[in-house]
Amino acid sequence: MTKLLISLAALLALAAPAIAQEEAAAPSPGEIVAQAPAEEWITIPSEDLLVMTLAPAADGSERKVVIQLMPAPFSQGWVENIRTLARAQWYDGITVNRVQDNYVVQWGDSNYDNPEAEGAAKPLPKGLRVMNEADYISDKVGQALAMEDVEIDEDPYADSTFFHQGWAVGGDTDGAWPVHCYGMAGVGRGRSPDAGSGAELYTVIGHAPRHLDRNIALVGRIVEGMEHLSSLPRGAGALGFYTAEEAGKRTPILSVRVASDLPESEQPAFEYLSTGGDSFARYADARANRRDPFFIHPAGGADICNIPVPVRRVGD
Amino acid sequence: MTKLLISLAALLALAAPAIAQEEAAAPSPGEIVAQAPAEEWITIPSEDLLVMTLAPAADGSERKVVIQLMPAPFSQGWVENIRTLARAQWYDGITVNRVQDNYVVQWGDSNYDNPEAEGAAKPLPKGLRVMNEADYISDKVGQALAMEDVEIDEDPYADSTFFHQGWAVGGDTDGAWPVHCYGMAGVGRGRSPDAGSGAELYTVIGHAPRHLDRNIALVGRIVEGMEHLSSLPRGAGALGFYTAEEAGKRTPILSVRVASDLPESEQPAFEYLSTGGDSFARYADARANRRDPFFIHPAGGADICNIPVPVRRVGD
Repeated sequence: MTKLLISLAALLALAAPAIAQEEAAAPSPGEIVAQAPAEEWITIPSEDLLVMTLAPAADGSERKVVIQLMPAPFSQGWVENIRTLARAQWYDGITVNRVQDNYVVQWGDSNYDNPEAEGAAKPLPKGLRVMNEADYISDKVGQALAMEDVEIDEDPYADSTFFHQGWAVGGDTDGAWPVHCYGMAGVGRGRSPDAGSGAELYTVIGHAPRHLDRNIALVGRIVEGMEHLSSLPRGAGALGFYTAEEAGKRTPILSVRVASDLPESEQPAFEYLSTGGDSFARYADARANRRDPFFIHPAGGADICNIPVPVRRVGD
Repeated sequence: MTKLLISLAALLALAAPAIAQEEAAAPSPGEIVAQAPAEEWITIPSEDLLVMTLAPAADGSERKVVIQLMPAPFSQGWVENIRTLARAQWYDGITVNRVQDNYVVQWGDSNYDNPEAEGAAKPLPKGLRVMNEADYISDKVGQALAMEDVEIDEDPYADSTFFHQGWAVGGDTDGAWPVHCYGMAGVGRGRSPDAGSGAELYTVIGHAPRHLDRNIALVGRIVEGMEHLSSLPRGAGALGFYTAEEAGKRTPILSVRVASDLPESEQPAFEYLSTGGDSFARYADARANRRDPFFIHPAGGADICNIPVPVRRVGD
């Protein structure tokens, strides 16, 4: 694996003589991403994109959220369930039920597992897989697969932490798992051994709750419209659930569709910056060592959630 | 210094035989805090509390934010300036001008340093100190002072990271500095050597932007009402500033007062859990090793921003 801080020093030494580097203003992480060549951007399959439409905002403006589902080898049973639920239009009409500051926004059936339910829980569609907590960890990411990846030193939550095919991942001798960074989406569940179905989902709206890694299935990340979730009013109940008196604050979810099922003209298109390419390595190094003009003290390191993988919309 | 993970194992070994520990459900971090004895809670001086009143919400409800200013040895020049600005009622009538998702909410004079200013910048009161970027770091926190503190291993941003008298701190041989966790408040500034006055303030509303450590003055933290800032609509302009077209989204700040200047009946009272006590050490260990029933895999570690210092309101 490439060690982040060492490989970049070497890369820069090859790129230009030392004096020229000092004279030019160092590019910011954003400038490095903007200058990445087209071949380092990888198309996200439309089968891996979900379009979630919330009820319009108070001012009548549209609120759409796009979620990128995680590819193999992670969490594929839950990801399949989520496509099944979307295709059964099961999510249509559910609500955002929980907004806990510096933690998560969670959406699902407000009558499911709720002592104050106002009606019967919505029946789930047939064909959902019953998932197991062993599947929080994949044994399919080996040393060989990770050869091209940027590794992050000094992570308190995992023996090693690195970027693998566009995702932030932790690993040890048992396997590898996606990690809970801002904007990651996961599967709500009850007490162990329940591992959740995918009918109840959440996203992270605060500091990375990495203690949830290997304890809940992560299934993707928000790639557009995060602000429609992160700015929702916080719930006054325990764990940020809206209380019965606050039921009017639950934001309705009008529909959730797999992008590939939409008419071609309505399909959003996104790509991510390859985490195995030179631009990502330079970007990660610049995040860890800010040299752009605002900064005085480059940190000399960054935690994996402070290096978000660049994702961009294309077309339109 | 106490090493977090070692000291707690020792502490638990003293407390009870191993079998009894396995039989009892392990307390959650919140339960440990709730059970902390009164003598481990430390009163925050009312001189260190600011009450910031925002314009009421759309539904007419009150929005008050309480900020705890940082004690010596950190950032005291800026903290004094903030008290001076509050006592001159300079903050009254300024607005929240920037809300950048997963980053910061920032408030100040919308006509200051703004190419699209709608009027003249508000004159600053006399007596403000001109601060220097050398003051981002204090050389007053030595090994001796830190003897009682809980240290965190494996931080990518600082040689050592620990809790010092109620605050999360990074340090190296040059000194120590407060770190950018969720809810921390800091001083907006222009390009170096400008270090800001305290007239422009921000708070962190996303993953800890630790690359800002030692690059901006931190002056405190939000101890109540954070949700009134974190849930504000995001700005559409560069860096999350509201554009001229979005001027109506700027939330007015009606007043900012030092709590000790308020009539006694209106003074809020808060206390924090001593970071040098047994309860905090147990709480920090429980954050790093969740053993309460929801969890399957204790992480074995936590980054310093995932161990928020408990603060509670008292009285009323």
